[in-house]
Amino acid sequence: MRLFQEELAVLNVGLGSFADEIIQAGGKAAQITWAPPAGGDPAAGKALARLVNDKDIEAANQKAFAAYLGADPTLVGIALAREAIVGMNERRILHSGPPIAWAQMCGPMQGAVIGAVIFEGWAKDHAAAKQLAASGDIAFAPCHHHGAVGPMAGIISPSMPVWVVRDPATGRQTFSNLNEGLGKVLRFGANGPEVIERLKWMATTLYRVLQLALAETDGIQIKPLIAQALNMGDEVHNRNAAASMMLLRRLVQQMLASRATREEVTSAVAFIAGNDHFFLNISMAACKLMLDAARNIPGSSMVTAMARNGVMFGIQVSGTGDRWFSSPAPVVNGLYFPGYSIADAAPDLGDSAITETAGLGGFAMAAAPAIVNFVGGTPADAIANTRAMGHITLGKNGGLLLPTMNFAGTPAGIDIRKVVDTGILPVINTGIAHREAGIGQIGAGITRAPLECFSQAVTALASLLPER
Amino acid sequence: MRLFQEELAVLNVGLGSFADEIIQAGGKAAQITWAPPAGGDPAAGKALARLVNDKDIEAANQKAFAAYLGADPTLVGIALAREAIVGMNERRILHSGPPIAWAQMCGPMQGAVIGAVIFEGWAKDHAAAKQLAASGDIAFAPCHHHGAVGPMAGIISPSMPVWVVRDPATGRQTFSNLNEGLGKVLRFGANGPEVIERLKWMATTLYRVLQLALAETDGIQIKPLIAQALNMGDEVHNRNAAASMMLLRRLVQQMLASRATREEVTSAVAFIAGNDHFFLNISMAACKLMLDAARNIPGSSMVTAMARNGVMFGIQVSGTGDRWFSSPAPVVNGLYFPGYSIADAAPDLGDSAITETAGLGGFAMAAAPAIVNFVGGTPADAIANTRAMGHITLGKNGGLLLPTMNFAGTPAGIDIRKVVDTGILPVINTGIAHREAGIGQIGAGITRAPLECFSQAVTALASLLPER
Repeated sequence: MRLFQEELAVLNVGLGSFADEIIQAGGKAAQITWAPPAGGDPAAGKALARLVNDKDIEAANQKAFAAYLGADPTLVGIALAREAIVGMNERRILHSGPPIAWAQMCGPMQGAVIGAVIFEGWAKDHAAAKQLAASGDIAFAPCHHHGAVGPMAGIISPSMPVWVVRDPATGRQTFSNLNEGLGKVLRFGANGPEVIERLKWMATTLYRVLQLALAETDGIQIKPLIAQALNMGDEVHNRNAAASMMLLRRLVQQMLASRATREEVTSAVAFIAGNDHFFLNISMAACKLMLDAARNIPGSSMVTAMARNGVMFGIQVSGTGDRWFSSPAPVVNGLYFPGYSIADAAPDLGDSAITETAGLGGFAMAAAPAIVNFVGGTPADAIANTRAMGHITLGKNGGLLLPTMNFAGTPAGIDIRKVVDTGILPVINTGIAHREAGIGQIGAGITRAPLECFSQAVTALASLLPER
Repeated sequence: MRLFQEELAVLNVGLGSFADEIIQAGGKAAQITWAPPAGGDPAAGKALARLVNDKDIEAANQKAFAAYLGADPTLVGIALAREAIVGMNERRILHSGPPIAWAQMCGPMQGAVIGAVIFEGWAKDHAAAKQLAASGDIAFAPCHHHGAVGPMAGIISPSMPVWVVRDPATGRQTFSNLNEGLGKVLRFGANGPEVIERLKWMATTLYRVLQLALAETDGIQIKPLIAQALNMGDEVHNRNAAASMMLLRRLVQQMLASRATREEVTSAVAFIAGNDHFFLNISMAACKLMLDAARNIPGSSMVTAMARNGVMFGIQVSGTGDRWFSSPAPVVNGLYFPGYSIADAAPDLGDSAITETAGLGGFAMAAAPAIVNFVGGTPADAIANTRAMGHITLGKNGGLLLPTMNFAGTPAGIDIRKVVDTGILPVINTGIAHREAGIGQIGAGITRAPLECFSQAVTALASLLPER
């Protein structure tokens, strides 16, 4: 009965209203934020219980994280998709996110497919392109199934040039298309004549100049370049201003040393100089390469991809190989361009969340306080986001330091167990496309990966464990 | 007598030991940091008393600060010093800081003068150059007396090319020499054959290419460029990585559009791309232009220049015109390159503190957390420095925002009254030269302007006030 005679020291876990009443009655209570794992889903919770404190999983994760850290993504060249990517020497179009059929695709992805069909010369106008796309005569597949990544709609067709990023030690390669700039561009679903014309120029002049320039190098290491960009306010997902300039500074010298004509160099430099996002697609291919190194390690609960097709948000996990765990893609409550609102937005779209999966983008927001002007929030929110991601990741990337975090490494290696246990969802900086084909970007913002993908993955990984 | 019966609530002002004893005896005391104004100098303290809460001074400062804010420094060209700067079509050499005679100059400044004499062809070797410099046949003057600024030794001789920065509204112009890069360079006192050769190349090929490139523009506005650089981790004094790249990105397009040959463009681009400090000298000329706009406003206590010649640290104040208030330059306790220490250092040197005078450099360190790797300290120190400078300045520059300070403007317009009153000394990020001629840079660090300059200025400004 001494309990009633002493002053109570209360730690309240979970629902805050219990603590509130004690405080209102003149007592003291410290509130601990807590919610049941897996949002209260008993099956996922039980699966999670099997995965925590498992020595084999810890060992597998150490191996996966070390493989991620060890990759050395190096930009070695540029090639046409049909030459560089297996399976692209036929009538195939790659798209972002998990697999999806033409009929289910969101507006901007259909718009981008139509543009690609016209760009390829497979159809003469929009109506014919749409008919062809719906006919089944074009094979569709996720970029990720072909070692590639693409921002937003992520469309890669056979005649598009792609960056080739390679890990010298393993020979592993990844690919990405080239960034078209902002405004009316294919990846946001625009497909008018100016979009097709730009794609054609990119596939000829720009392709030729970049190919000649890259031939003058022994490859460009991407990780040191990203590390410098983090010192210069980029998070290399929605802010690539410094990285794009550093790349241009390097490439322009190789262009001048190459056989490219002065006119070709001039037009290529003007295009790259006018696009602060030019580096994004290289950043994405580099991130995919780092994460592909961590794929297919039995037992590992580390996420190797997060990607969205504008309908579904999907993740892949090292220990479950190439299987997708998907859930409806959220609509982004971000900063909209004048005249547009969330009602106009397509759901979350693009492979670019591969940057967050690798510890960049939203995970490295602390490096990029100025990005809040583009995606919303305050610099303090940016730092808080990075800090929160430390709770759901396997470690820090000591090669990618964040100055405002006192040069701590960026949090990396998302652990599905920690996401499901804490309910802290991976934060993603993203662009927002109009939900209809042919319009383009209407905003940018910060979104979260859906818990459901991670709960599914936890259940699937637990089912692979040997019975004990 | 109730004092002895109640619990004491002590605010202790000044010497902390009084508070310490109360706390040791079990009492409570809050410590307020305070020191007598002017470091206890009664004359300066009395002068300060005449200057505070003076409506005419407040009005003059508002005028000065508005003039500083209103200037629009625009890079309009590049010219040879003898053509652009009044008084430079004779045997004259400009140097950094307040006036100083050859015999009194520090080692690196003498070294740089010797190099300039050889570069000009006025003497064939070091011995002859030294003899000529000592003979009185060369006129020496501060850069500041000729509308110019130069980092470190700040040597400008007639055949050197100089940036021309202009305020379109007033036609006011300022000048700065071109940045040679790091290592063995004239501004740090090196003067070997490779230094002279580089200066000659800069005065011919680089000069020609930049002149042709700038002729293709209507001028390049510098303030928006600095504003962007502050979003990208520069403070545009000791960190100019982003600003230099932005300038290169702009200039390379003009170079390609100009009559410069491909070989000329290639060599100019390689030089600029290899020098992350290339923008510094333009930043300095722009800062001088903003501050020159605030000069000679009767009664204003705003600092218009801080500059060091390696022997003396001098300041100029709006209300006292072109008069220098000087005090021995401190030696910088910074980060030294391997093999060097503070014993090897020349005292603080260069006109580059014009950036701090304009609210950049050390005043904008919060924008550049990564700079602490170069000048020492932690990112938290960088933010604390910027915050402290808010106590000694007239206002914030709303055109130059600091992302990590939640987009507050950088503190600008140093008020000599506030410096003398608070004892908070202006913080300066700086390079460190070897004290002997011919060696070069040996480190970088953070230093403070000496209080004595500000006490002198307060006394002088008070003496100009009408008797009341």
